[in-house]
Amino acid sequence: MDYVYGPGKNHLFVPGPVNIPEPVLRAMNRNNEDYRSPAIPAMTKTLLEDVKKIFKTTTGTPFLIPTTGTGAWESALTNTLSPGDRTVTFLIGQFSLLWIDQQQRLNFNVDVVESEWGQGANLDILAEKLAADHSHTIKAICIVHNETATGITNNLATVRKLLDHYRHPALLLVDGVSSICALDFRMDEWGVDVALTGSQKALSLPTGLGIVCASPKALEASKSAKSVRVFFDWNDYLKFYKLGTFWPYTPSIQLLYGLRAALDLIFEEGLDSVIARHNRMGKATRLAVEAWGLKNCTQKEEWYSDTVTAVLVPPYIDSAEIVKRAWKRYNMSLGLGLNKVAGKVFRIGHLGNLNELQLLGCLAGVEMILKDVGYPVKLGSGVAAACAYLQNNIPMIPSRI
Amino acid sequence: MDYVYGPGKNHLFVPGPVNIPEPVLRAMNRNNEDYRSPAIPAMTKTLLEDVKKIFKTTTGTPFLIPTTGTGAWESALTNTLSPGDRTVTFLIGQFSLLWIDQQQRLNFNVDVVESEWGQGANLDILAEKLAADHSHTIKAICIVHNETATGITNNLATVRKLLDHYRHPALLLVDGVSSICALDFRMDEWGVDVALTGSQKALSLPTGLGIVCASPKALEASKSAKSVRVFFDWNDYLKFYKLGTFWPYTPSIQLLYGLRAALDLIFEEGLDSVIARHNRMGKATRLAVEAWGLKNCTQKEEWYSDTVTAVLVPPYIDSAEIVKRAWKRYNMSLGLGLNKVAGKVFRIGHLGNLNELQLLGCLAGVEMILKDVGYPVKLGSGVAAACAYLQNNIPMIPSRI
Amino acid sequence: MDYVYGPGKNHLFVPGPVNIPEPVLRAMNRNNEDYRSPAIPAMTKTLLEDVKKIFKTTTGTPFLIPTTGTGAWESALTNTLSPGDRTVTFLIGQFSLLWIDQQQRLNFNVDVVESEWGQGANLDILAEKLAADHSHTIKAICIVHNETATGITNNLATVRKLLDHYRHPALLLVDGVSSICALDFRMDEWGVDVALTGSQKALSLPTGLGIVCASPKALEASKSAKSVRVFFDWNDYLKFYKLGTFWPYTPSIQLLYGLRAALDLIFEEGLDSVIARHNRMGKATRLAVEAWGLKNCTQKEEWYSDTVTAVLVPPYIDSAEIVKRAWKRYNMSLGLGLNKVAGKVFRIGHLGNLNELQLLGCLAGVEMILKDVGYPVKLGSGVAAACAYLQNNIPMIPSRI
Amino acid sequence: MDYVYGPGKNHLFVPGPVNIPEPVLRAMNRNNEDYRSPAIPAMTKTLLEDVKKIFKTTTGTPFLIPTTGTGAWESALTNTLSPGDRTVTFLIGQFSLLWIDQQQRLNFNVDVVESEWGQGANLDILAEKLAADHSHTIKAICIVHNETATGITNNLATVRKLLDHYRHPALLLVDGVSSICALDFRMDEWGVDVALTGSQKALSLPTGLGIVCASPKALEASKSAKSVRVFFDWNDYLKFYKLGTFWPYTPSIQLLYGLRAALDLIFEEGLDSVIARHNRMGKATRLAVEAWGLKNCTQKEEWYSDTVTAVLVPPYIDSAEIVKRAWKRYNMSLGLGLNKVAGKVFRIGHLGNLNELQLLGCLAGVEMILKDVGYPVKLGSGVAAACAYLQNNIPMIPSRI
Repeated sequence: MDYVYGPGKNHLFVPGPVNIPEPVLRAMNRNNEDYRSPAIPAMTKTLLEDVKKIFKTTTGTPFLIPTTGTGAWESALTNTLSPGDRTVTFLIGQFSLLWIDQQQRLNFNVDVVESEWGQGANLDILAEKLAADHSHTIKAICIVHNETATGITNNLATVRKLLDHYRHPALLLVDGVSSICALDFRMDEWGVDVALTGSQKALSLPTGLGIVCASPKALEASKSAKSVRVFFDWNDYLKFYKLGTFWPYTPSIQLLYGLRAALDLIFEEGLDSVIARHNRMGKATRLAVEAWGLKNCTQKEEWYSDTVTAVLVPPYIDSAEIVKRAWKRYNMSLGLGLNKVAGKVFRIGHLGNLNELQLLGCLAGVEMILKDVGYPVKLGSGVAAACAYLQNNIPMIPSRI
Repeated sequence: MDYVYGPGKNHLFVPGPVNIPEPVLRAMNRNNEDYRSPAIPAMTKTLLEDVKKIFKTTTGTPFLIPTTGTGAWESALTNTLSPGDRTVTFLIGQFSLLWIDQQQRLNFNVDVVESEWGQGANLDILAEKLAADHSHTIKAICIVHNETATGITNNLATVRKLLDHYRHPALLLVDGVSSICALDFRMDEWGVDVALTGSQKALSLPTGLGIVCASPKALEASKSAKSVRVFFDWNDYLKFYKLGTFWPYTPSIQLLYGLRAALDLIFEEGLDSVIARHNRMGKATRLAVEAWGLKNCTQKEEWYSDTVTAVLVPPYIDSAEIVKRAWKRYNMSLGLGLNKVAGKVFRIGHLGNLNELQLLGCLAGVEMILKDVGYPVKLGSGVAAACAYLQNNIPMIPSRI
Repeated sequence: MDYVYGPGKNHLFVPGPVNIPEPVLRAMNRNNEDYRSPAIPAMTKTLLEDVKKIFKTTTGTPFLIPTTGTGAWESALTNTLSPGDRTVTFLIGQFSLLWIDQQQRLNFNVDVVESEWGQGANLDILAEKLAADHSHTIKAICIVHNETATGITNNLATVRKLLDHYRHPALLLVDGVSSICALDFRMDEWGVDVALTGSQKALSLPTGLGIVCASPKALEASKSAKSVRVFFDWNDYLKFYKLGTFWPYTPSIQLLYGLRAALDLIFEEGLDSVIARHNRMGKATRLAVEAWGLKNCTQKEEWYSDTVTAVLVPPYIDSAEIVKRAWKRYNMSLGLGLNKVAGKVFRIGHLGNLNELQLLGCLAGVEMILKDVGYPVKLGSGVAAACAYLQNNIPMIPSRI
Repeated sequence: MDYVYGPGKNHLFVPGPVNIPEPVLRAMNRNNEDYRSPAIPAMTKTLLEDVKKIFKTTTGTPFLIPTTGTGAWESALTNTLSPGDRTVTFLIGQFSLLWIDQQQRLNFNVDVVESEWGQGANLDILAEKLAADHSHTIKAICIVHNETATGITNNLATVRKLLDHYRHPALLLVDGVSSICALDFRMDEWGVDVALTGSQKALSLPTGLGIVCASPKALEASKSAKSVRVFFDWNDYLKFYKLGTFWPYTPSIQLLYGLRAALDLIFEEGLDSVIARHNRMGKATRLAVEAWGLKNCTQKEEWYSDTVTAVLVPPYIDSAEIVKRAWKRYNMSLGLGLNKVAGKVFRIGHLGNLNELQLLGCLAGVEMILKDVGYPVKLGSGVAAACAYLQNNIPMIPSRI
């Protein structure tokens, strides 16, 4: 059975892994299959075609790699860059920090642009660096679209504008782990060269697929990139794409069927409706935080994230205690504060296959926990604020009218 | 996939069928098996032993019949009574009405004691009838422990006291469909002769098992009962119990494994903790209803049900519209008002495998729906009232400390 | 986990419950739902329409009753007959015996036509009885299409011819439990008035649905039938059919989705292909039995069953030992000999979602078991005989070409 | 549903991915969970302890990496070696070839010892190389325990003996992808420094876990190994092992529960019984091949593999046609011949959660297919040979006696 049981449904509000829809669980509840039979390549073909839609690309080439987000990062970097290459990258929280650490260990020349945690990527400094880089030493801009640790969404359109303004040929590599399929993301329009996500995030699958999409320019770069790679090498995939067998090594049959089901659900709801739903979730959460008299870790509205909200607690409270009590008393999972914001923030993940009443149950729970740990919240206040907004904004479910 | 899809988790708050715990879903996710192999009888033996615990009986004999609650009723009646036998039974809502209809169609002489819908069984009249029945023409008292249509819990201890007081030998047949495993129920202590429930109620399984438990007196009565029966005949079961093969016809393998898992979860949480949890759910719901300024269909506190709350709406609102909008806009299922209370009440089922945050999400949803249909509710008010109570009463989850 | 584990797949070759296809298991792997929401009636409507196809009827009315085959029998009898009514029925094995027992206990006047076990229904005697029955005292002919205990398929077309020849108005009630969806069955063409099956047989679902189909004549009979019934009463169903809500009491949500998936698979393969596949399975099994030098319990080819083969063992072998060793040593489930043929036959069920290689594995296993118990079988002989036939008769899988 | 449906159970006899036991499927049929809650680390701790048993090591350190066998290879190499390091490795089939390719691309100095495909690793040449390597330029011996393409099992005990004999300090890196948990494997006794397998092989799980086990000597080597690595870096795991949170990035919750269930099943059966069962499967298959008059691709008995048999077909037959027909006509999946043996061999994988009757069904199927493609096989001959052996060697299932 469960390793640790609690009555009722677990309330999963970490920013990943997220809740899997029942139809997806069903699709994955199956025996293994021979991945060299005609069935799996036929299905894979539809997946590669359809997964491009969630990146909003028609020219990109997707790779479904049996790995995690960390592996997807590595795939993006090693296929496009050579050791010693200069990257400009932004340190704004724990996950951008980990990506930077990876870039350094992979022997790139990492030019870090740091912001205070709670602020977005400093694009003014990017502009300066681009302006100064006449010899085009910058080979890639590496940026997280959404920093999961602090609930920050960076403005990718502006990054593209800057690159265009300075006519800079640097590749644009985007970590979309906690954004793609939840936030507005436009690979082609924004000229993103490599975008990536993980299956356990907004796609609402189990962990296990690193989904990477490469622009034609990125594919071109991969031909000369000298970083050592085998498992993550796009060329091995491309070879099998040409053969029509698609897989250089064994994929997870279950995740392929799961991805098929997940995409079907997303298209049935409509990708734009999915994004709008995430926007409602984000707004409702922020309104609740405000009603509780607490601060959002994200310092400006322009960076507000619709997939995760990091909530600052007063200094006399240890935010880890909130997460602990959520689990021990309410069968709810919240996100811890990480690294610089450990103890200072707790995080509500509101991405993936969720609806409003699930979120409201979470918010009601947070209110009780805040009381538990000594914060003088007015019970019901956050829920009331969220409901007042949601009341006017939840659409009917199209298939049910 | 689903027949009609909506994003996120369906919020199932009808008073049955109820939410199935994931470990139970897992246990049932299996191929058929030969029910004549040694494995199924060995498992069945443990089920028959353990299921007695949820009836709080040591002397009863349980039957796991592949049927619904309606079939379980029929089993209780036809195995203990003969055509023409007089029953005293109570009409207090739609489900007691249906049971009475069944009794009449099975040719019993049904002596109906009617109450206004919203009131419990009139035990004063029972007392009168028992007092007057010197020749013991009353063969059985038939009573629903919990009337699911109006959210009424009858006082079975008092019924037993009256029977004892008048030294009346009538059998006591109890419909525990929406009570057993959720409300305090004591088969042996209360001298219940036949108690029954359905798998899809507080046991939190799919529909398909009518679980009937017979006292020694009921078994004795079955020897002379002249009602025609084959499928529901206890004797066929008893014959196979003696053989150790247990099944007169094919059981559902999946439901047997599911029942095994359901009982394991109930015993892990503790039956008394399960009942206490239902009590918390009931109180929290009633506090919310009160905060909304609405009336409980149940007229007196002594009858309040901890498994379902029927909420009266103002005359200018059609309660069916509330149920419809819950489903169409919020992916939530509430119970309709039935028969005499159609359009007047909607019902919140809070039984089975549920926890507090799930209920709070439901209550928040109801608040928005009430606004949708024009009732001037203060958003957050019900949730606040429920939280204020729950805050002080939810225990830690034992396995998590 | 499993109650008793063995390595590898369990080889389930009892004549029910049978192997469930993985897509059906997936479809049933789901939480409960409100059966009064718009979704379940909408799905039910398609089920009632489509289930008629497996009966080959356009004029029949189907009922999906939460019960077993035994309950389906009771439904067929009590809705069409009155106590004291004369039925002519055939005793040819354990399941026809049980049906006769039920008819007697339901107080019908049962006119039993007995055959030696191993022979089909004696239709000559039926002819005599019909010829003699000028006053039409016979109200119903009750016949099993396929006797599961002895592997006998009766000729229903001849029964109809006799009824027509003598212009006899008796109802024709058919137990199709181990035939419908596997053998050629033609409700309308053969003028069957009530046909029934159970979900755990050729439909390859879990136990729990008694599927009963009534002709217009049977429905007409139900209006005047005086047998006492409530749970099994068709009228309650018909009332809810008219309302469009379909269910007089709670159905199993999981079985409804399972039935939807099962029907979809049957129609995808094609009902005629399904029947042809069962014919191949039956022939292959009989060829193996012959090659082993053993006798089929079924005495004439005209009665050979394509869903189950009862194999006679030499007198010095106890057939129960074969079944026991199959389970203990080979993780295989075979059918026991029942009642008169206990110890004398073992049964190979070859119905439901099976393919040829599964059957060949079973046959190879039986060969080893026969050796185990001292029968001088030539190993490989049965498999060789079956393969020689199958080799020329298995079609390509249409979706795979 | 399935992407391509066929009636009955798919017969999966490729040498991976293999059949998943139903209890494992059930264990994985679950929603995501927070991997930072106390539950997942507590479970992970048991996994890391128990997984060592399948390597037969007490001193090794296991890593459960979200990757495939290819990634596990990369992890083994990059954590222990530096670019330019000399490895001695054996080319005996497609998978050893791919590993060599990886070693070359990772910039090691690969000293390849080639054998004819169908022969095992040439250990005489290894002896020569070790004898000649006074200055210990050989940093690692890389060897596949079982070459999946040709069905060859190499003798690791001899490799260890040679290393000891020459007192050579080279690391011994072993690909146990198609051996561990199926063949006799003794990490500690044989002084293996890194052993690895994939979840979709003998562990009978979905693809997605690369399971790598490092000896203390390998861990020591990892401290100075200069190969670039991040995703595959053992140090990141070790850091989190010390913290007790275990995961440097998100694991698959489902695979962890699946691994727990898989290990439980293996220990219930007994690892030695599992290995003995694979030995029975291998022998039975080889006896069938012999009976058919066909040749095993493996040229000497000392190399026979108990997990996969590569069968040579006569020159006038294209082995790919056999695989194609198995799938199109019999719903069976066999392994293709790869690279040098493409068209010349087909492969029967007989590893993982299988039992004897499943294999016999497969063998019967192969016989029919051989006839289909024009090979004059005597139908039943292979099954008879296999049964004659199995008959005397299958033990009773312990839990069933």
